[in-house]
Amino acid sequence: MCKELRTGHLMMEIPDFKKRGGLVPVVTQDADTGEILMLAYMNEEAWAKTLATRTACYYSTSRKALWRKGETSGHVQEVKEIRVDCDADAVLLKVHQIGGAACHEGYKSCFFRTVDGDGWHVVETRVVDPETVYGKK
Amino acid sequence: MCKELRTGHLMMEIPDFKKRGGLVPVVTQDADTGEILMLAYMNEEAWAKTLATRTACYYSTSRKALWRKGETSGHVQEVKEIRVDCDADAVLLKVHQIGGAACHEGYKSCFFRTVDGDGWHVVETRVVDPETVYGKK
Repeated sequence: MCKELRTGHLMMEIPDFKKRGGLVPVVTQDADTGEILMLAYMNEEAWAKTLATRTACYYSTSRKALWRKGETSGHVQEVKEIRVDCDADAVLLKVHQIGGAACHEGYKSCFFRTVDGDGWHVVETRVVDPETVYGKK
Repeated sequence: MCKELRTGHLMMEIPDFKKRGGLVPVVTQDADTGEILMLAYMNEEAWAKTLATRTACYYSTSRKALWRKGETSGHVQEVKEIRVDCDADAVLLKVHQIGGAACHEGYKSCFFRTVDGDGWHVVETRVVDPETVYGKK
């Protein structure tokens, strides 16, 4: 997966958005603790906005629209570092999550369930009440 | 992105492979240090093999084939924990990387470049010589 680096990706100044139809997956990590907070996507516009504002902007594949994380809740993600992978088709954001919870379900991380031989188990504790942040649904 | 949890995803025993054409993105993290090693994809067969063998198996989107990480180099990833995200369309693997380098370019992590106003910069050090592991190309 890293071979393309040798053929010129180091010269690119943006990730390879063409490879998968205009989107790249983005891993978002707590800059202080290293916890993975979420996985989302960016299109080229979201990438540019993230660089310009230093707050995370994604592309919502369900709403098919730009998604500035925290635009509803105020819980934006301050971007501390941006990385790209070897073949330039994935992004890593290291962030400070305002409000403490990246997940709409009120957990710090969207990855709050673990999988073992007995199935899926919630292994994290809710840190905020989703209804307080987003209102009743 | 987390709303679907309320509509039954907790009852599923596999990630939602249908949502994006049979694949889910997988973030792979060093179980000890929290460093993000790589981002890859799984199809349902790769998911099943990973669970069964407790070593990471992905689906190579370039080769269009199952990809047992380390099958060429011997540098397999021992899976310590598996997590799924709130809407069950992304996977997090916490692993022990045999050989020390997850990246074909010889770096511990595929995310060895950072992005700032001046462009992209390599900020990690190679830990293995790719030619030693994979042979000359």
